[in-house]
Amino acid sequence: MTGTKGLFVSLEGIDGSGKTTQARLLAERLREAGREVVLTREPGGSPGAEEIRALVLQGDTDRWSAETELLLFTAARRDHLERTIRPALVRGAIVICDRFADSTRLYQGLSRGNLRGAVDTLHALMIGVEPDLTLLFDMDPELALSRAKARATAEERFEDFGLGLQQKMRAGFLGLAAEFPERFHVIDAGRAPEVVAQDAAAALEARA
Amino acid sequence: MTGTKGLFVSLEGIDGSGKTTQARLLAERLREAGREVVLTREPGGSPGAEEIRALVLQGDTDRWSAETELLLFTAARRDHLERTIRPALVRGAIVICDRFADSTRLYQGLSRGNLRGAVDTLHALMIGVEPDLTLLFDMDPELALSRAKARATAEERFEDFGLGLQQKMRAGFLGLAAEFPERFHVIDAGRAPEVVAQDAAAALEARA
Repeated sequence: MTGTKGLFVSLEGIDGSGKTTQARLLAERLREAGREVVLTREPGGSPGAEEIRALVLQGDTDRWSAETELLLFTAARRDHLERTIRPALVRGAIVICDRFADSTRLYQGLSRGNLRGAVDTLHALMIGVEPDLTLLFDMDPELALSRAKARATAEERFEDFGLGLQQKMRAGFLGLAAEFPERFHVIDAGRAPEVVAQDAAAALEARA
Repeated sequence: MTGTKGLFVSLEGIDGSGKTTQARLLAERLREAGREVVLTREPGGSPGAEEIRALVLQGDTDRWSAETELLLFTAARRDHLERTIRPALVRGAIVICDRFADSTRLYQGLSRGNLRGAVDTLHALMIGVEPDLTLLFDMDPELALSRAKARATAEERFEDFGLGLQQKMRAGFLGLAAEFPERFHVIDAGRAPEVVAQDAAAALEARA
């Protein structure tokens, strides 16, 4: 991030693409190499943002409109940025964030509502920061969906939209990679986890 | 509000200016005249918005930055507008709202941060609605502060800033009245409550 010593890396991809596992593997590898790593996630990632996350994710899917949800997630991101991400980058750490603004561009901008314009304006106004590097874990949605169903967590909201949505999201992420080629690095995530991890580490080393 | 049958009235003023009492008196008078009245308040006013209010107001004053607080209050306003205000106006009710966007223009735009530009952009993007009539209960801050201290509630955050802030807020509200003369109606709130109530009712009848 401009003006800081650290490196801000976001991990994106459809549910079941393995990015949470890859985040952990990447953090372990970097720590073994002696780097300070802050492994975080969105929505959430700071005490306040985690409270907002809980407020959004509890209850029915239609409890909040797409617009209100967008505002709540942007509030959570602002807190996460102020309290977790920016301080870590200032002291020179590598921040690995499981989902960031690109997920909002797709989930609130494309899937729940047609809000991409509002998402972008809100981001420019209240966040204003992009990752130095975004690793997109690209995977066949049928494979990703079968993996997502297998791990069935309590927070199923983001995973219960079926194959059609997953296909739309995959295309959306690839579209964002084409829109922001300078920071996106697309990784074929359908391969063995250790092979994927090797690619992710190489992409990060090329930027660090 | 454009496209609806009802009337949207907001009540503004510094703490201790008597607007909450006036809101109740105005609602009683209108109900006696056979009108449906929805008496509501911000932050809050719908179940979701009240939960966001609780999240913002609990804990330390510096728990959220001015920017995060602005996003949370805008999320609450969006929910309040969708779930309470707009449905009431569509069925022809008079909505009396104790504080609305003008309070945000001052408290987040002027007092906590210098965010008026962000407040306005966010309002245009995610709210887009102004009251048909805004009653400003204008009062000498020394009188208002002594009243506010006398009623000492658990939610003291907005009231614990002292006389200097109250003076700044009074000037700010009068500035907004000059900025939006078509919807603002300024009432001298330093007089007896029943006299003030008479003025408020007359202003509303002139618009209804």
